[in-house]
Amino acid sequence: MRAVLLTGFGGPDQLEYREDVPAPQAGPGEVRIRVAATAINNTDIWTREGAYGTPGDPSGTAGWRREPLAFPRIQGADVVGRIDQVGAGVPRSRLGERVVVDPMLYTGGERELVDTEYLGSERDGGFAEHTAVPAENAHAVESPLSDAELATFPTAYATAMRMLNRANVGSGETVVVTGASGGVGSALIQLAVLRGARVVAVTSGAKRERALKLGAHEAVDRNSPDLDAQVGPVDVVADVVAGPAFPQLLRMLAPLGRYVVAGGIAGPLVETDLRTVYLRQLQLIGSSFGTHEDFAQLIGHVERGELTPLLAGTYPLHELREAQRAFTAKDFFGKLVITVEDAA
Amino acid sequence: MRAVLLTGFGGPDQLEYREDVPAPQAGPGEVRIRVAATAINNTDIWTREGAYGTPGDPSGTAGWRREPLAFPRIQGADVVGRIDQVGAGVPRSRLGERVVVDPMLYTGGERELVDTEYLGSERDGGFAEHTAVPAENAHAVESPLSDAELATFPTAYATAMRMLNRANVGSGETVVVTGASGGVGSALIQLAVLRGARVVAVTSGAKRERALKLGAHEAVDRNSPDLDAQVGPVDVVADVVAGPAFPQLLRMLAPLGRYVVAGGIAGPLVETDLRTVYLRQLQLIGSSFGTHEDFAQLIGHVERGELTPLLAGTYPLHELREAQRAFTAKDFFGKLVITVEDAA
Repeated sequence: MRAVLLTGFGGPDQLEYREDVPAPQAGPGEVRIRVAATAINNTDIWTREGAYGTPGDPSGTAGWRREPLAFPRIQGADVVGRIDQVGAGVPRSRLGERVVVDPMLYTGGERELVDTEYLGSERDGGFAEHTAVPAENAHAVESPLSDAELATFPTAYATAMRMLNRANVGSGETVVVTGASGGVGSALIQLAVLRGARVVAVTSGAKRERALKLGAHEAVDRNSPDLDAQVGPVDVVADVVAGPAFPQLLRMLAPLGRYVVAGGIAGPLVETDLRTVYLRQLQLIGSSFGTHEDFAQLIGHVERGELTPLLAGTYPLHELREAQRAFTAKDFFGKLVITVEDAA
Repeated sequence: MRAVLLTGFGGPDQLEYREDVPAPQAGPGEVRIRVAATAINNTDIWTREGAYGTPGDPSGTAGWRREPLAFPRIQGADVVGRIDQVGAGVPRSRLGERVVVDPMLYTGGERELVDTEYLGSERDGGFAEHTAVPAENAHAVESPLSDAELATFPTAYATAMRMLNRANVGSGETVVVTGASGGVGSALIQLAVLRGARVVAVTSGAKRERALKLGAHEAVDRNSPDLDAQVGPVDVVADVVAGPAFPQLLRMLAPLGRYVVAGGIAGPLVETDLRTVYLRQLQLIGSSFGTHEDFAQLIGHVERGELTPLLAGTYPLHELREAQRAFTAKDFFGKLVITVEDAA
C-alpha cells in the first residue's frame, strides 16, 4: 500500500513516501480501516523531532512517552475511513461502517490513559491507505460532514474535552483560551461555549475575528504587553502555548483559579513564582489526550451537529512533508488534513 | 502593656520591646485575651522582611497579601491564653475561658480565606500581654497540654490540614513531606498518618530519627543526589521547601500525582518542565493557611489527644529578637514559642 514512513527523529526529510508498504491486517478484536482522511497534529511534529525530552534531560530526544520510538513508523492519529476488514471476534456487520478513530490505545481508566499508546506513535497510524485498530476505538459516526471535516476532531477535541473536564469548567465561568487559532485552541473555544462558559480567546491580531466567529465572547491580542491586566481575573486558563506568557497567564487567575495545560508550543520550560500559586491558592493541572469517555462525549457533540469543523486545507498523502511544513508555519486557522486518494 | 512592635520591614532590629503600649479593647463581637503563649511562624519572619514580593515584582517588599503593611504592628498569630474581656454581644460566661486562637480573620468560605486578614499581620497579634480577636476565632479548648504546647498548633497545623484537604489525601496513599523538621512539616507527618497515609519524610541527616518517631514510615536525606529515584513514585508531595529540589519533587510523582505547596523556604522561584506536568497529568495545588473548618478539625484532634506537640524551646517576650534569630537558624525540631510572663 501507499504510506509515509517516519524513518527516524529529525526534520521533514525523515518522512519517506512509499508505494510498497505491506498493508496491516486486522488482528483478533481489531478492525482494519480503508483510510479516507487523517489530520495533522502537533504531536506528529514533536514526535518526528523527538521533542519531548527525557524525564532527566529536558533536551533529550524521545517520543511523547519520553522513551525511544520504533522506526520506521507510520504517523497519523486522527483517522476517518471505512472498515474493510474485521479480525476474529468482531461482527462482520461492521464491514463498510464509516468510522472516526479514537487514537488513544489503552484499556482502563484515567490512570491507564497516562501510559496509553497513541495511534501513529507507538503503533502505525493513518498516513497510509490502511490502518488497523482495536474494534472499540473505531466509532461509527452519522454525520453530513465530509471525511476531511470529521478528521479535524479526534485528538484536538478529545484533548480539549479532557482539559475542560480536568479543570471542571462549569456554566457561567470565565475561561481564557490560548493558541485560539490552533486545533486544541479552537476546540476549547467551541467546547467551553457549549458548556455555558464565557470565553476569552488569546490569539494574534488577524485571527481574532475568527475566534469571535467561533463563539468566543472576547478576543485579545497575545502580544499585548499588559495582557493580564486586560483580561483577569478569570476562573480558568486553558493553555497549550506556555512559554514567556506563562507568568502573565497565572496572574490572570482569580483566587482559587485553575490553570490547565496540555502543551507548550512557545516553550515548556517556565519559571513559576510559587508564592503566586500558594498565596492565591491556584491549581495547575496537567492534561494530556482524552479518555475514552471524553471521546464518546465528543462524538455525541459531532453527531448532534454542535461543532463547526475548521478545515484549513487538505494535502494528498504524498505531500505529507509539505503539509507538515505548512502546519509548522502556523499560518492558518484550524486543522490541516491529509486526504488519502484512491490508488490509480 | 508590654509588647514587641514591628516598626518596619527589615531585620530583627525592627522589633522593639516596649512596656508602654496601650492595651487593646474588645470591640463589639470580640473578646480580649490575656496572652499566655504565642508561637513563632515563618510568616512572622517573611512579613518582617517583607519577603513576599509584589505580583509584578518577585523581589518587591510586601506583606503576605503582597500589599504594604501598617506599622507599627504587633506580630504573633498562634495565641493561647484566657479571655479577660468581652465586647458587646459576647456572653460574659466566656470570661476566664482558656482559648486557642484561629488566626485567620475572615468571614465566609475558602474564597474569602484567600483574601483573609491574618493575626499579627493585618491586625495586632500575640507578642504582647493582650490581644483582641473576633469571639468566634477564640476556640475554647479542653486539654492537659501546657499553654506553650497548645501554641505550637494553630498556623502550622491548620496550614498542614488544608494542604492535605486540598490534595484530598486518602487512606493508603503515599505522601512525601518536605521540611519535615519544621512546624508545617511535622504537622503534615502527624496529620497524614492520622488519616491512614504512608508518609515519607524528607529532612536532613540528624533530624531523620525525629521524623520516624513522629510516625513517618520512612525518612530520607534531603541532600541525596538521587532523591527522586530513591522515593518515587508517590501519590502526593506536600511541600513547604521548593527551591532547587522542586524538579526532583515533581519527578517523584506517579501518574495523576498531586503536588501541594504552601511555602518555599529554599526559594519560591522554580523552573517547571510543563511536559512533566501534562504528560504525567499531574496537579500542582497552591494552599495557604487553613479555613475555619480546617481549624475546627484540628481542635478536635487536639482535644482527643491525637497530636504530639513539638515544643522545641520557649523565650520570654522581651527576647523575641533572639527567638526569631534562633527560628531562622532552623537548628531545632518543631516550634519555638514566646511565653508572656506576668508583669512584675
